[in-house]
Amino acid sequence: MYRCSLEKMSDKIRTFSKFGDAGHGGITRYSLSDEAKQAREYYTEKMKKIGATIEMDDFANMYATLPGSDPNAKRIVMASHVDSVKNGGNYDGILGVISAMEVLETVVAEKIPHKHPLTAMIWTNEEGSLYPPAMMCSGVVCNEYLPEGIAKNFKEENMLASKSVLDRTTTFGEALEKSGYKGAKENRLSPDKYEAMFELHIEQGPILENAGLDVGVVTCVLGMFNTRVKFYGQAAHAGTFPMEYRQDALYAAAQAICYLHEEIDKLGHPELVYTTGEIVAHPCVHTVIPDYVDFSIDVRHEDPEVLKKVYQIVRGLDGPELAKCRCEVVDQWNRDTVYFDKKLVGYVKQAAEELGSKHQYINSGAGHDAQFAAYVLPTTMIFASSEKGLSHCEPEHTSDEVCTESASVLLNAVLKCDME
Amino acid sequence: MYRCSLEKMSDKIRTFSKFGDAGHGGITRYSLSDEAKQAREYYTEKMKKIGATIEMDDFANMYATLPGSDPNAKRIVMASHVDSVKNGGNYDGILGVISAMEVLETVVAEKIPHKHPLTAMIWTNEEGSLYPPAMMCSGVVCNEYLPEGIAKNFKEENMLASKSVLDRTTTFGEALEKSGYKGAKENRLSPDKYEAMFELHIEQGPILENAGLDVGVVTCVLGMFNTRVKFYGQAAHAGTFPMEYRQDALYAAAQAICYLHEEIDKLGHPELVYTTGEIVAHPCVHTVIPDYVDFSIDVRHEDPEVLKKVYQIVRGLDGPELAKCRCEVVDQWNRDTVYFDKKLVGYVKQAAEELGSKHQYINSGAGHDAQFAAYVLPTTMIFASSEKGLSHCEPEHTSDEVCTESASVLLNAVLKCDME
Repeated sequence: MYRCSLEKMSDKIRTFSKFGDAGHGGITRYSLSDEAKQAREYYTEKMKKIGATIEMDDFANMYATLPGSDPNAKRIVMASHVDSVKNGGNYDGILGVISAMEVLETVVAEKIPHKHPLTAMIWTNEEGSLYPPAMMCSGVVCNEYLPEGIAKNFKEENMLASKSVLDRTTTFGEALEKSGYKGAKENRLSPDKYEAMFELHIEQGPILENAGLDVGVVTCVLGMFNTRVKFYGQAAHAGTFPMEYRQDALYAAAQAICYLHEEIDKLGHPELVYTTGEIVAHPCVHTVIPDYVDFSIDVRHEDPEVLKKVYQIVRGLDGPELAKCRCEVVDQWNRDTVYFDKKLVGYVKQAAEELGSKHQYINSGAGHDAQFAAYVLPTTMIFASSEKGLSHCEPEHTSDEVCTESASVLLNAVLKCDME
Repeated sequence: MYRCSLEKMSDKIRTFSKFGDAGHGGITRYSLSDEAKQAREYYTEKMKKIGATIEMDDFANMYATLPGSDPNAKRIVMASHVDSVKNGGNYDGILGVISAMEVLETVVAEKIPHKHPLTAMIWTNEEGSLYPPAMMCSGVVCNEYLPEGIAKNFKEENMLASKSVLDRTTTFGEALEKSGYKGAKENRLSPDKYEAMFELHIEQGPILENAGLDVGVVTCVLGMFNTRVKFYGQAAHAGTFPMEYRQDALYAAAQAICYLHEEIDKLGHPELVYTTGEIVAHPCVHTVIPDYVDFSIDVRHEDPEVLKKVYQIVRGLDGPELAKCRCEVVDQWNRDTVYFDKKLVGYVKQAAEELGSKHQYINSGAGHDAQFAAYVLPTTMIFASSEKGLSHCEPEHTSDEVCTESASVLLNAVLKCDME
């Protein structure tokens, strides 16, 4: 068994944490921003130093490749992203890039023999924080392999036209042209050139930590659906309109949120997660009864039958009137559970066992580029445990030891894949 | 008994509806805007035509006065406002100005004898839609008479510094200087120059209409309190964070809103009104469990004991944790019930009876300039019924007949006051 270097991992974590330092322990590093370019430059410099060849495709995805001993073997790729959400942490995305770099450096330093070329890859704009949507560039590169319902959300021309949420003017296409990182379309990840893909990521939940474990052997990305629930009431003056005549859309929405919790909890599926993260009230003035309220509900579970039952509960809001308000339930999107490649999952499990890593099987409730890559070539993921399960925030943390342990699992899993 | 002219009232309603026509049957006429100036010019022109003297004070409040037969008598003033909310209706505020103008025109046309000078007044910036707060200029003019807790919210220097909610730069003071309507401080409404004030306004609620009545004899402006209820949770990823560990601030807020409805309704006071009009969730992203949610609750009732009971229920949220979130209840403001002058209320009641108007006593749940004026001099209000109780929206409507009926009540009540 080989092991990655704690010292070198720590050094990389510290270094990347400077690129976009937001001053409270975390970073803001939008895709293609100056801060993201600093991260790309550092990656390029380090990868060139070990003799890797750097390629870019037309969506600025980057590929640093070490040749293997078999000239006919396809590449094994380890991929993640360097961009973050606003005021995000030092681990989401970047830990996968750091680990991939560390794997290549360890292979070179320890002269580990390998047949396949090995690639450390950066996906552009995974978060979609500045230019929505999330997973934009894997959505484009994998587009022709994706289910139709998902593929249509990632059409190349629409992605290039996506506007900055900050200035509402600059398009992603313009940012791409200016970035200096736009390469050739023929460099895109493709099944004829790539054998398998691994993505190492932080868990972003508390399951591993609560179980006293460091590493997650990921088996799937959960299926989900996302709908909007809308209530239409009647605006009126807060001081002059008697309660009995009111059609209060916010009261209707509050009752609906409580009802959904009660009914969904009755199904008794402890692994089910559902969230109302967004709520919009109109006119949202303290002296006016709201005439319109609209909230999101995001529901995730591995089993499509469970999702169906929850969906029926949400749909059921469409019927009885709450607070005399008309309700409308509007589907936003959904995806099926994406199962990772069994052989690759097995390599990760075996590597964790042989290294003596404290690990368990786990699924991913969050979306990742790997879920799109899984339609293109054998793919899997490795999770590093997240302290308190926090992510997408500055306190996001995983110890250097756990990061290194996870990178070692990646290294050995890749080497097992190489022996195929 | 004298009556106002249906034809002339209709004409005025149509004419003022053009100043700021928003294209859907209503208007947007911010205070001191070009549209508000058109309304002021038309008022000036019409009032000069009947020989009234026009004065302005230093907050652009306007006073059009007809002399009375007694040189020592103080003025009787009828006051309202010409400004509106965004996409407001053709009656809120302006109906009081139209009626005051119509009263003076009728007095002149019918040569009605009167001892006191009679004044038709425009209060500047009642809505506070562009330059908050609402009732700004009555708050300044009446400031030294107001209870301390209210007076501090209307300090002259702070009002002049209030910034436009649109450009966030222009101050109310700058707009005042540029308006051409800034006059002399000595022209302000004051008890040594004014005998009594009447304000005619639309009801803004459905009580009169539902009772089959046209006119409301207003006895008081309801006491109220306004608080913010804040919940502090923990943000986490919607897909990765198991339900059992969540601290979901929006779920806590939804439960709190339902709880407040249940508990407050148990008190069994049908005239009590309470409203959550505003809700703010952070970060308000569909994939993130909200870590902070804050909502308003506005509660109004005539009886301070009832308000106290409701306040205790709201305060009670501070204790038990909902959805594992900490709760904080923050007082915003409150006001005592303001009772109108009994003698003036009696004149309005008598006038309505003698005219055969379909009327009843009513209180005002909404705030009006009259509630501040009531601290300075004997004051009262008259309501014209609102169709469906709608106001602060373009469909706001009161028939020309009901407008004229209400103006006739105003005319005769003023004449009764004049006979004192």
